[in-house]
Amino acid sequence: MAERIGFIGLGIMGKPMSLHLLKTGYPVVVHDLNRPAVDELVAAGATDGGSPRAVAEQTDIVITMLPDSPEVRQVILGPDGVIEGVRAGQAVVDMSTISPITSREVAQALAVKSVTALDAPVSGGQKGAVEATLSIMVGGPSATFERVLPVFQAMGKNIVHIGEEPGSGQVTKTCNQIVVGITIMAVAEALTLARKAGVDVAKVRQALLGGFAQSRILDLHGQRIIDRNFAPGFRIKLHQKDLGIAMASGKAYGVPLLTTGLVHEVLGSLVAQGHQDLDHSGIARFVESLAGLED
Amino acid sequence: MAERIGFIGLGIMGKPMSLHLLKTGYPVVVHDLNRPAVDELVAAGATDGGSPRAVAEQTDIVITMLPDSPEVRQVILGPDGVIEGVRAGQAVVDMSTISPITSREVAQALAVKSVTALDAPVSGGQKGAVEATLSIMVGGPSATFERVLPVFQAMGKNIVHIGEEPGSGQVTKTCNQIVVGITIMAVAEALTLARKAGVDVAKVRQALLGGFAQSRILDLHGQRIIDRNFAPGFRIKLHQKDLGIAMASGKAYGVPLLTTGLVHEVLGSLVAQGHQDLDHSGIARFVESLAGLED
Repeated sequence: MAERIGFIGLGIMGKPMSLHLLKTGYPVVVHDLNRPAVDELVAAGATDGGSPRAVAEQTDIVITMLPDSPEVRQVILGPDGVIEGVRAGQAVVDMSTISPITSREVAQALAVKSVTALDAPVSGGQKGAVEATLSIMVGGPSATFERVLPVFQAMGKNIVHIGEEPGSGQVTKTCNQIVVGITIMAVAEALTLARKAGVDVAKVRQALLGGFAQSRILDLHGQRIIDRNFAPGFRIKLHQKDLGIAMASGKAYGVPLLTTGLVHEVLGSLVAQGHQDLDHSGIARFVESLAGLED
Repeated sequence: MAERIGFIGLGIMGKPMSLHLLKTGYPVVVHDLNRPAVDELVAAGATDGGSPRAVAEQTDIVITMLPDSPEVRQVILGPDGVIEGVRAGQAVVDMSTISPITSREVAQALAVKSVTALDAPVSGGQKGAVEATLSIMVGGPSATFERVLPVFQAMGKNIVHIGEEPGSGQVTKTCNQIVVGITIMAVAEALTLARKAGVDVAKVRQALLGGFAQSRILDLHGQRIIDRNFAPGFRIKLHQKDLGIAMASGKAYGVPLLTTGLVHEVLGSLVAQGHQDLDHSGIARFVESLAGLED
């Protein structure tokens, strides 16, 4: 018999992810504070759990997909939370992007009840969630990873078990967001210099893609910058949140992150200017405005 | 009859490049202040020109491959320089990595003598020069680009004509060095965070290569950082020079380059600490030392 899945958090990511689990044939029990999202999943065949605690009581594997660390702590460890409904042998899988420190706290608290935790943040955005092509970076015990792998495979493609240590998946996601954010900044500075020097920016992108400067960011976001296409995609406010996690992680683990900090502040400036809902390739707008260019 | 090529500057790049021209069958006239380098080329079939002026007098296309802007200005525009030996219809091709501002000055001075200039900086390093696989980014008139193209093809593979404007090739090379330098910094911050958080750095690299964080730098220099292989490669002191050109270009064209400036200072710090001859992936050493890690 298929494992029963609990799914808490039916936002722009969680909704298509839980729909894929239903389509694959899993019994799914859902919860969200947003009533219409719950109704939509129930119409598609899910059960309304009613509370995080009740979701845990009715399922074998509980998945959470929430905005940030405080929501994960509240839903799993808070009153009427998942931890009040679990029993030994269950697995709790947090697929939110949160602080690795919080992931470790959650894992420790659940271990007391003989429940194993995985942290399994994703990349690939709304498009990846809808198309079931998410990359999933997983931290936690190998046995639990193997058990949950078929569930991951219903939602994603590039699924990597990073390590046994709780939080390993979150650390990897943080590293991903550091590299992506800084690389966008690199491409933005280079293409803005080319533009103000009167050089064909598309030719510069093309030439650079043939050598050491090649990256997916130069390819995709370089093209976005040339096309002035800043429709999300991945929103600036979310990348700002993720680099906030990076800075807190740097502090916790003793790694000064000079460049990450700079890009975090750039994202903060874009939010302050009202650009929070642009795609993160909109970092180019910041560099351009410093150089006196209007969009 | 094949065009006669002048080649001035027989360093670690210029020597293998001019040898490829000889092998391809071009008559080559060389010059360098370093006598043994000239002797080596003469033994391989080249003619010793004696001076930049004399090289220009005996050839149709004059190539320069020199350390920096002052050397290019001296060799082309200085006393006994190329400009004193040229005649109308000749082409002067500077393949050094220098300031685009200097490239434009040189092109203007040569235009007075009805000589066309190309700026054609390369990437791919000593390995690319030896294997004739350099990437070549070219600025200057299309007709001259077409004329010199077979000569470029004897030395490189990915040859792109960026634009008619003198300096377009140099601007592109500067953009390349900006993106490469900042991307190394991004990878260094991410992998150092992973390392201090106790996560398997090789697994993080592998997971990130599957998504938006993918880049040649993460692939090749990420592996170098994991392997502690900081043998050059491309030396820190040369990247420092190139980002110095980037900062001067940013000033000239009115583009504040916050992140490029930060990485330029990081390279300066590594030089001050005696690491000038490490590969530029040694930027990781800077991030690690900030985090209290010894090599």
